[in-house]
Amino acid sequence: MKYTHHNGELNQHHVGTSVYLKGWAAKVRNLGGLIFIDLRDRYGVTQLVIKPENPFYGTALQIRNEYVIEAKGVVIERESKNLNIPTGAIEVEVSELIILNTAETPPIMVTNETDALEDTRLKYRYLDLRRPVMQQFLMKRSEITQAIRGVLVEEGFYELETPILGKSTPEGARDYLVPSRLYPGTFYALPQSPQIYKQLFMVAGMEKYFQIARCFRDEDLRADRQPEFTQVDIEASFVDQEDIQAIVEKILVKTFKKVLHLDVKAPFLRMSYHDALSLYGSDKPDMRYEMKIFDCAPYFSGVDLPLLTHQKFIRGLILEEGSDVTRKRIDHLSHVVKKNHGDTLAYIKFEKGQYSGSIVKYLSEDQLKSFGLKESNVLFIVPGNDFEHVSAALGALRIELANLYNLIPSNTYKFLWVVDWPLLEYNEEENRFYAKHHPFTAPVSAEALKNNPKDAMAKAYDIVLNGYEIGGGSIRIHNQEVQRLMFDTLGLSKDDIQNRFGFFVDALKYGTPPHGGLALGLDRVVMLMTNTTNIKDVVAFPKTQSAKDMMMQAPSDVDPVQLEELKIKAGV
Amino acid sequence: MKYTHHNGELNQHHVGTSVYLKGWAAKVRNLGGLIFIDLRDRYGVTQLVIKPENPFYGTALQIRNEYVIEAKGVVIERESKNLNIPTGAIEVEVSELIILNTAETPPIMVTNETDALEDTRLKYRYLDLRRPVMQQFLMKRSEITQAIRGVLVEEGFYELETPILGKSTPEGARDYLVPSRLYPGTFYALPQSPQIYKQLFMVAGMEKYFQIARCFRDEDLRADRQPEFTQVDIEASFVDQEDIQAIVEKILVKTFKKVLHLDVKAPFLRMSYHDALSLYGSDKPDMRYEMKIFDCAPYFSGVDLPLLTHQKFIRGLILEEGSDVTRKRIDHLSHVVKKNHGDTLAYIKFEKGQYSGSIVKYLSEDQLKSFGLKESNVLFIVPGNDFEHVSAALGALRIELANLYNLIPSNTYKFLWVVDWPLLEYNEEENRFYAKHHPFTAPVSAEALKNNPKDAMAKAYDIVLNGYEIGGGSIRIHNQEVQRLMFDTLGLSKDDIQNRFGFFVDALKYGTPPHGGLALGLDRVVMLMTNTTNIKDVVAFPKTQSAKDMMMQAPSDVDPVQLEELKIKAGV
Repeated sequence: MKYTHHNGELNQHHVGTSVYLKGWAAKVRNLGGLIFIDLRDRYGVTQLVIKPENPFYGTALQIRNEYVIEAKGVVIERESKNLNIPTGAIEVEVSELIILNTAETPPIMVTNETDALEDTRLKYRYLDLRRPVMQQFLMKRSEITQAIRGVLVEEGFYELETPILGKSTPEGARDYLVPSRLYPGTFYALPQSPQIYKQLFMVAGMEKYFQIARCFRDEDLRADRQPEFTQVDIEASFVDQEDIQAIVEKILVKTFKKVLHLDVKAPFLRMSYHDALSLYGSDKPDMRYEMKIFDCAPYFSGVDLPLLTHQKFIRGLILEEGSDVTRKRIDHLSHVVKKNHGDTLAYIKFEKGQYSGSIVKYLSEDQLKSFGLKESNVLFIVPGNDFEHVSAALGALRIELANLYNLIPSNTYKFLWVVDWPLLEYNEEENRFYAKHHPFTAPVSAEALKNNPKDAMAKAYDIVLNGYEIGGGSIRIHNQEVQRLMFDTLGLSKDDIQNRFGFFVDALKYGTPPHGGLALGLDRVVMLMTNTTNIKDVVAFPKTQSAKDMMMQAPSDVDPVQLEELKIKAGV
Repeated sequence: MKYTHHNGELNQHHVGTSVYLKGWAAKVRNLGGLIFIDLRDRYGVTQLVIKPENPFYGTALQIRNEYVIEAKGVVIERESKNLNIPTGAIEVEVSELIILNTAETPPIMVTNETDALEDTRLKYRYLDLRRPVMQQFLMKRSEITQAIRGVLVEEGFYELETPILGKSTPEGARDYLVPSRLYPGTFYALPQSPQIYKQLFMVAGMEKYFQIARCFRDEDLRADRQPEFTQVDIEASFVDQEDIQAIVEKILVKTFKKVLHLDVKAPFLRMSYHDALSLYGSDKPDMRYEMKIFDCAPYFSGVDLPLLTHQKFIRGLILEEGSDVTRKRIDHLSHVVKKNHGDTLAYIKFEKGQYSGSIVKYLSEDQLKSFGLKESNVLFIVPGNDFEHVSAALGALRIELANLYNLIPSNTYKFLWVVDWPLLEYNEEENRFYAKHHPFTAPVSAEALKNNPKDAMAKAYDIVLNGYEIGGGSIRIHNQEVQRLMFDTLGLSKDDIQNRFGFFVDALKYGTPPHGGLALGLDRVVMLMTNTTNIKDVVAFPKTQSAKDMMMQAPSDVDPVQLEELKIKAGV
């Protein structure tokens, strides 16, 4: 390439150097005849200066924001230095200036800060992505991906591709379907994950597989979900849970070091699913702050309090610095509790030697003292008869309090393995079991699955970062009979099993090694590593909450001929 | 991991070492009480030996082919060494033996050689892939992918992901469609390539992009095509054709070195499209052998020969060693010529001082001598009025002769850039132009596109390896007006342009840098580098020629509820 430097590179050491630069005119100023142009590329900004006597002065006068230009010149020291940017000590005195392309005034400003509406940003995504902060998200994503892949390759994993045009095996989320032209009336499905393929790689003896895999779910979207997303899909044979955990820890430790220059300590904390739920009210607790949930029932034994009697569980947590917990805030917190399966929220506040709160009047001074509250403490209590509901309510309350009272240290990464999961979940309404992870997860004991499925435990492990589940994995079933038993327990008929998973159950009988794996949600990992809370920031061309591509206007009408060829009728 | 070695690793240096191995029983033999088991994993084979007095002898007796086992033992020297395999000098005397999983007799043998039918192999793909030769294809594919990616990352390219759920913009091949549930009657389309997205990355200022991208075409399949395929998609800004060619050469040189330990010389040969067609009868000539096509018309000036008179072109090529060209073979070759747009095939054979062949009788001795034929030469001649047809026929003949007479040196890689392409192709029947590459390819001169589209040349370049097009690229149009002119010339109406490419034409006006790129067909590159001729060998889970997944049985019927949700009727 003919260009000598990029725009984040030049400093006082380059003074006197002849350079050839290119980029976008980020800002053009005319100061008493001198024209200054901030020349931007993906690396940074260099200031160009053009004097009135310059033969290219006329060219410079034509340049507007976002014009694409190239310039030759010499690096000189700036009179008034800008020490906030790497190139702020120098400028380039231009000797030759060429306009490569013009630009109309863009509908959004190409600056780090923007007040453009999200719809506008999505419609003009190519301009939104030109904003340096957005370029950084994508560049970091690429760097993170390379770092992760690097560890896996180093560890002897092979990157193997699996089909996007697969078979529909609905279980859990909804499939995206693709009509077949050659077999009218039949469909391919886009994969929700390469789960079955990666297990087949193990059957095939590939031993260590990974893929940066695109996955698809036709679900109504939440803020941190996209209809298509990317996972780092990992599977290995002849391993146990600890082997997979060790690999994943190595990936994350090395990636954080390489990309963020941060030291993360391994092994990560391990916590059982039950402890996570009971101590933090969540299966993905944020470990950056404490505020543990505890059993308050003993404090209330013998207390006659309408709110709490006949409740199987009375649990709570303490906010340390709660002096500004107001009535209004309590209302808000009660609302959070109720939205998250809690019946009600009680509280006791201790301030300046005084107890206040909804239930204080029912309690004696001794009983109040027994809580051991310190100055400014607020004890929040949620009673209830369903352990999971009480936990969920307190878990949500814990997060809300942490956010409201700024209890979350910034730039901190706290990893956690949540282990010892139940294998199944019983749905009372449908009167059937669902797999807590997926139907290929191995039980700790096949006997337990057979005799007491409700209490059977799984060889499953989730990895949590800062309150987000960033990955889930398990040791898989490698025995054909156990796999059949699992399908049976899930209520699949023999026909169902045959039609949907027949080839897979077949595959298991020809010498399948013990195996297991994990999938990391790449989008989430990147989101957390780049300190944004919007998953769209780390996806180049995201869709809206209603699965629409605002830029391309997809989905869209298609030519009727296309539908005729597929022999389908739409919108009926 | 508890295992100490893999099965390709142990040799005489390890004698006396305690080892812990795992894998599949590839072969079990009982020789006079001693049981020998060939233990196979993806790395190789180790021979285990179990003596009758071993407490695990009973276990060993149960083991059948493809059982999954693990064994502890000590490395000992073999009495009768097998020097054909790396571990052939040693065996492992087993001290502990555990069966991890049993195996029924597999429907295909897990050996490098197979006589199983392709349908059987595809149905039991997980067993077919267990054959070491197949594992090697996939492992090489992964290694090739890493090598290619390594060069791109090193060169400052960022790996950026683009959507699979895109918009249908039919031009060229047929799109796969995905019905939208949220907007009934509308569709996403799977991308035929990320062309528009990668150009938008350039608009967004990402400057250097790549992606190992999955692409989709709903076309009737040929042997070397799959409905989904993978391309190494590359795009860069502020570059010209030579910059892209240099990057691609660097990728290929380094990848061949790293994976095959082969030195490939760059820069690669360059040839114009016109020369490729006229000298080799193909836009992707195989340069591993010569046999150039040449103009024979001068030799026939003044000859009155019904076959050749009134023909605009009389062209031919010489087979050097043609002594066993028989009448029957000529019939076959005539057939090849006719199947490839040739009207007829004439020939002159020179052997033992005698000329023979279909047209000899019309020519004088002097005229015959003027061809300069040497002993055993056969001159093949194809006349015709259409240059492209004559070239195509001779090109096909050239390939057929090379195959029949083993003129292709093995283990040779000959790269070629085909450059200087016409921009457009005129379709006489439809009375319209088509883009020779795609409608985003820049013309060498916008003036020429405007005033004389038929003769306009493109800034396009294909890369050819051993007669296969392994990649195609171009400098793109970065000027909005030129892009409009291109669409106009292709006969797209204003509405068409707006509906299909409106956002893209819009995007071009906000400061688009000059840019260009190329896409390498990864499947083909891997196929050529692994010396197979079947693209299915290098795709983990390929589909049949009729786009069927034999293993999963996809496409398949789906639950009527799924179609109701999508509001589509199928098979109508």
